[in-house]
Amino acid sequence: MKLVTIDDVRAAAERIRPNVVRTPLLAARWGDRERPLWIKPENLQPIGAFKVRGAFNAIGAVRENSDGRDAVTDVVAYSSGNHAQAVAYAAAAFGLRAHIVMPEETPEVKVAATRGLGARVVLCAAGQREAVAEQTAHDTGGVMIPPFDHPDVIAGQGTAGLEIAEDLPSVRNVLIPVSGGGLASGIGTAIRALCPAAKIFGVEPELAADTAEGLRLGHRVDWPVGDRNRTIADGLRSQPSELTFAHLQQVLDGMITVSEAEIRSAVRELVHRAHLVAEPSGAVALAAYRQGVTPPGDTVLILSGGNVEPQMLRQILAD
Amino acid sequence: MKLVTIDDVRAAAERIRPNVVRTPLLAARWGDRERPLWIKPENLQPIGAFKVRGAFNAIGAVRENSDGRDAVTDVVAYSSGNHAQAVAYAAAAFGLRAHIVMPEETPEVKVAATRGLGARVVLCAAGQREAVAEQTAHDTGGVMIPPFDHPDVIAGQGTAGLEIAEDLPSVRNVLIPVSGGGLASGIGTAIRALCPAAKIFGVEPELAADTAEGLRLGHRVDWPVGDRNRTIADGLRSQPSELTFAHLQQVLDGMITVSEAEIRSAVRELVHRAHLVAEPSGAVALAAYRQGVTPPGDTVLILSGGNVEPQMLRQILAD
Repeated sequence: MKLVTIDDVRAAAERIRPNVVRTPLLAARWGDRERPLWIKPENLQPIGAFKVRGAFNAIGAVRENSDGRDAVTDVVAYSSGNHAQAVAYAAAAFGLRAHIVMPEETPEVKVAATRGLGARVVLCAAGQREAVAEQTAHDTGGVMIPPFDHPDVIAGQGTAGLEIAEDLPSVRNVLIPVSGGGLASGIGTAIRALCPAAKIFGVEPELAADTAEGLRLGHRVDWPVGDRNRTIADGLRSQPSELTFAHLQQVLDGMITVSEAEIRSAVRELVHRAHLVAEPSGAVALAAYRQGVTPPGDTVLILSGGNVEPQMLRQILAD
Repeated sequence: MKLVTIDDVRAAAERIRPNVVRTPLLAARWGDRERPLWIKPENLQPIGAFKVRGAFNAIGAVRENSDGRDAVTDVVAYSSGNHAQAVAYAAAAFGLRAHIVMPEETPEVKVAATRGLGARVVLCAAGQREAVAEQTAHDTGGVMIPPFDHPDVIAGQGTAGLEIAEDLPSVRNVLIPVSGGGLASGIGTAIRALCPAAKIFGVEPELAADTAEGLRLGHRVDWPVGDRNRTIADGLRSQPSELTFAHLQQVLDGMITVSEAEIRSAVRELVHRAHLVAEPSGAVALAAYRQGVTPPGDTVLILSGGNVEPQMLRQILAD
């Protein structure tokens, strides 16, 4: 299987530069003395999550590869989360039509937010997302932009790792949330190439720890979706594809799993000490850091996104 | 009176570069269509507020101007707020001793935070801060670092304006919280020089609107401290000095005052839409933007700080 390379990540960085925020690496002086803590705040991206990196790279590559006569005019994605808004946002920036397939039970606020970005939302029955998305792509001639299972998406997410290597060459640990694995695959690829002394850890909720188990066993495992859906970290309920799993096997030094209570505590700590709002999925890397199990040295955590419902944030802060 | 110049601000930027965050300018796509909104998130600085800019510039200048025999070893400041922590933090970075004078009624959490940065805290009776600080400076041979009434502090705060001019030359409006006026003096100086088409607005709580009244009358006015202390925006209860007032007369196009309800609403909006935690004082510029009274065009608001007590943040989010 052909894996993404550091050159792919570098090309992605050039491609997405005008459209994404080069997020600062923030020194959190309230970290441990032995393991100085740095935060990569991807919640500051447009739409509030790292997903714009992959979306702009994938859609940008599609446009470069289509010529005048067969120029692409439509893109299709299935997602009820940050990927939906990222594709809608990137498509609008390029003047393309976006068709986003979402399950009927998606909260109205997320449907409205996606429409607000100019996308057409196609609602479908639970479990039908992929089939409906393929049909939509067929009907519209649109190109499918998958949430993680694509080299251009992985390379796009990896640009965050490129920035870390530029800003903190001395980095010794990088902690990255893992769901479908696109973010950890991309960042891991960049850090492996540029900071070979650094250890790279994926982080999962205990309630959706399929990747931790899979890497231990040496092959992907399936956890029932009903099990994975128990975690409050709703952005971490997906599982790697063959492509991302192969990357994770290559680039990760280990996995750390965190409890629901640790996730909630990490959201609070980020609000009160870093002045940053993280969604639960975005806070798992801090939860892992707080376990104190990683080697000494400069430690970067990826705060992957900030889209938390007001009601849930209030509950977490009141705990 | 000699005012700070753009060259002073440029020199400050060189001086503080290694120690402060070059905060990104964040496009907030949820702003008005007519007045695209941009946020300068100074809550991401070490200690959570813009004050580190002025502190590093002032202390850095003191060190450059002291020679080996008379080298400065101590600095003194009086503040119960962000300036206290900024001076403590900057002094520690330079290996200097910091003596911070605070009123006895200062919340223990702020005293502890300041001590946690390595400073010696000198508690004093209410209203005695300046006298005790002068005595402390005399006793220790320390150099006083005022919170706003000093050209080096003003020039340091102005570096945020330099960054705005670099990142968004097309800026048409800049909205800046005003208390002692150091931040608005510095940013105003930079924007006036580099973006002459931009309008610069100061923002105050209605309950502490001494500067709005003073600029209207053409001279500084004193509001009773008991009146000013009514605002929830505890960082905006000071009044300009002769020096900062002269700058504000020169650089501001106008003042906007905001209600307590508007301030609380702006804190909520920043949390839920920008994923940023602002203290009430840090949110007033968004409150002013929401009044819709500024001219069309790209509008930058300064989110000046994020140090809000957990209990107060919970209350505001529950409103």
